[in-house]
Amino acid sequence: MNIVLLSGGSGKRLWPLSNEIRSKQFIKIFKNGNGAYESMIQRIYRQIRNVNKDATVTIAASKAQVSSIRNQLGNDVGISVEPCRRDTFPAIALAAAYLKDIKGVDPEEAVVVCPVDPYVETDYFYMLNRLGEQAEKGGSNLVLMGIEPTYPSEKYGYIIPKGTDLISEVLAFKEKPDAAAAKEYIAQGALWNGGIFAFQLKYMLTKAHEYIPFTDYHDLFDRYDTLTKISFDYAVAEKEEKIRVMRFAGQWKDLGTWNTLTEAMGESVVGDAMMDGTCTNVHIINEISVPVLAMGLHDVVISASADGILVADKEQSAFIKPLVDKLDWQVMFAEKSWGSFRVLDLDSGSMTVKVTLNPGHRMNYHSHKNRDEIWMVISGTGRTVVDGMAQEVHTGDVITMQAGCRHTIIGVTELKLIEVQLGKEISVHDKQKFPFEQE
Amino acid sequence: MNIVLLSGGSGKRLWPLSNEIRSKQFIKIFKNGNGAYESMIQRIYRQIRNVNKDATVTIAASKAQVSSIRNQLGNDVGISVEPCRRDTFPAIALAAAYLKDIKGVDPEEAVVVCPVDPYVETDYFYMLNRLGEQAEKGGSNLVLMGIEPTYPSEKYGYIIPKGTDLISEVLAFKEKPDAAAAKEYIAQGALWNGGIFAFQLKYMLTKAHEYIPFTDYHDLFDRYDTLTKISFDYAVAEKEEKIRVMRFAGQWKDLGTWNTLTEAMGESVVGDAMMDGTCTNVHIINEISVPVLAMGLHDVVISASADGILVADKEQSAFIKPLVDKLDWQVMFAEKSWGSFRVLDLDSGSMTVKVTLNPGHRMNYHSHKNRDEIWMVISGTGRTVVDGMAQEVHTGDVITMQAGCRHTIIGVTELKLIEVQLGKEISVHDKQKFPFEQE
Repeated sequence: MNIVLLSGGSGKRLWPLSNEIRSKQFIKIFKNGNGAYESMIQRIYRQIRNVNKDATVTIAASKAQVSSIRNQLGNDVGISVEPCRRDTFPAIALAAAYLKDIKGVDPEEAVVVCPVDPYVETDYFYMLNRLGEQAEKGGSNLVLMGIEPTYPSEKYGYIIPKGTDLISEVLAFKEKPDAAAAKEYIAQGALWNGGIFAFQLKYMLTKAHEYIPFTDYHDLFDRYDTLTKISFDYAVAEKEEKIRVMRFAGQWKDLGTWNTLTEAMGESVVGDAMMDGTCTNVHIINEISVPVLAMGLHDVVISASADGILVADKEQSAFIKPLVDKLDWQVMFAEKSWGSFRVLDLDSGSMTVKVTLNPGHRMNYHSHKNRDEIWMVISGTGRTVVDGMAQEVHTGDVITMQAGCRHTIIGVTELKLIEVQLGKEISVHDKQKFPFEQE
Repeated sequence: MNIVLLSGGSGKRLWPLSNEIRSKQFIKIFKNGNGAYESMIQRIYRQIRNVNKDATVTIAASKAQVSSIRNQLGNDVGISVEPCRRDTFPAIALAAAYLKDIKGVDPEEAVVVCPVDPYVETDYFYMLNRLGEQAEKGGSNLVLMGIEPTYPSEKYGYIIPKGTDLISEVLAFKEKPDAAAAKEYIAQGALWNGGIFAFQLKYMLTKAHEYIPFTDYHDLFDRYDTLTKISFDYAVAEKEEKIRVMRFAGQWKDLGTWNTLTEAMGESVVGDAMMDGTCTNVHIINEISVPVLAMGLHDVVISASADGILVADKEQSAFIKPLVDKLDWQVMFAEKSWGSFRVLDLDSGSMTVKVTLNPGHRMNYHSHKNRDEIWMVISGTGRTVVDGMAQEVHTGDVITMQAGCRHTIIGVTELKLIEVQLGKEISVHDKQKFPFEQE
């Protein structure tokens, strides 16, 4: 079976742990069975593998997320890279073309699509398998999962099934309602629409060609930025006649806000933090190395990262997005395919960064027009290449690079360095990449 | 007139803005008339100078505070350095010997002693002058300031005056009472004892010699660590017969806790921070460069420094001290006489620090046994001396120093550098100082 995980957007609602590069699905705040922390995407991928180790898993993700996915999930997972954001229908169409043309998947095979971020347990993944089996049988073009509501939520769309059987025809779709309407839908037996559905690959390819003129995956990829933003529900699901819904009564939590996210946390403190005995219903997630002390607080979430510090009443935190839009912030930490970097200091004419390279990994071979750089190796061993000249480096070595010179560094062991950038116009956009050939 | 400002202890109750090196009196959170931020000690010194520009001002301070005092007040102020902490009587005795033997003050002159940290207005300083004039007249050995209470506080000692005149004899001293006793004292006309008093210098020298066998200032300084801890009230004031109290009805705030400190702040936010419209009675003091966002909070203080992040209910914040004692923290920022430093990164085997040298200033000439160091100049020009070899340095220059080598750096302009320390045992105690001779 094929599973496509839709990896969503920039996640400002979980600022400061998520930023333009790092979405909420990459934040490590859940404990896996071994006591180590894992992210939403690591958790769901591990859960899929536990239940269905042979499934082909593909992540539909933006370009900016590729480094984090490789860093957290390794190279076994497929990535259908969206060159830009165009809502769910184009993303699913591109993933379908990717499965056919890049992965060579048989068009008769079932594909299950689901979001990357719900907090669920094992029963959910068995349900995904049943959804796929149902689609492969071919009786319906589309098989949705309908989640049994636990309260009259205004955050989800609703699916009205014809009956109360496990599998049922669909009477109607309802947009996000107000609480009163939600209550009424639930009285009629309505289910939440969690954006989880299955189809045969050939069905989705047909739908894609109906809407978009393209020849193959590469052609669709190239014209992706010209596509209209349109949701899968609107383009396909709401118009489909041969559609069924399977009801799911297990745990399903959408961790889109600090309030719901902290409910799913196993412990109230992650990172260096302490709270006094008078705190109640307080959660602290501290990613930085300075300690947090909380006293006398109630129903509050505190979250600190290199990007910022949030202190919010949990209910109020749902309204964070417009406030974060106002903040003029620099990305201070990022995971890359080769490791990670953290901005330590910003000053006029200089920026100091800590770089960690994973063993066997390297940066792009690149140069900068408007800045000089200095590297100081603080631990590990590696190899630098500067204007074609290779050199072994160890703890304590200093490498200076003038503007214009081409450079890279390869970690032999894990390698940490302090990078000082010097120049009047320091910008992430000042970077020219060059092909690199290992001797 | 001579004013001695007693500069108190480590101030854990205002963590994380105060630490073992930086006491609360050095935190810059008040706005002066020009819109710039100033600290308590800068504020009180400026206020003294406005009212009494010819007063000799001496700060009685611990060794660890000397750098901050010089950095914030310059070189015009006298400092009576306490080699270790021995409570107020030894501190005042040492300051008296300092005034006589180092400053050559006439023993007939008046000395006014007061704490460095109350938040007061101009009328207070005129009152200090009157206290001094009264002492110089010689009718009493000791003239206290008694502050008219605004509520039955349990935090202060009380003075019971004989009458209600501006100047009155003292009937009794009362230790910090409970609220009920405080109410009773106030009904009797009691005044707060704020630790403010005046005497003729010769009186205090006599008292000092009564308790402590010493010849002169240097002798007293040398034997300071052998002295018994004893308060001035207990050793002197409570036993003195020729004593008067002058009542003061102006503003006098003791800024010892976050609750009282934030009351004295002119604005609710200092530093990079934002709060939403649903916050009430929230104060944010952010000394670091990552933004703070507060949402839906009430009666809360948020304070962030390189040492830590405090989020506390204002009432609850009074109980901070034992919690901070539990935190195992490294001093991450300090002001020095020559500038300041900030720890940017701590890792196993390395520490990265940003150093700022003021123009014309330099570090001690020193070496380390167990660590190598690398300096990268990120702005300014200066001069290094490494094992006796002088060298001019500019932005972009790198200086490497092996363990054991002697080194210093002098700022010609303001000079900023990134210092990387490398070694297995990095410690502030690993430092040998050497005499330094400018060519």
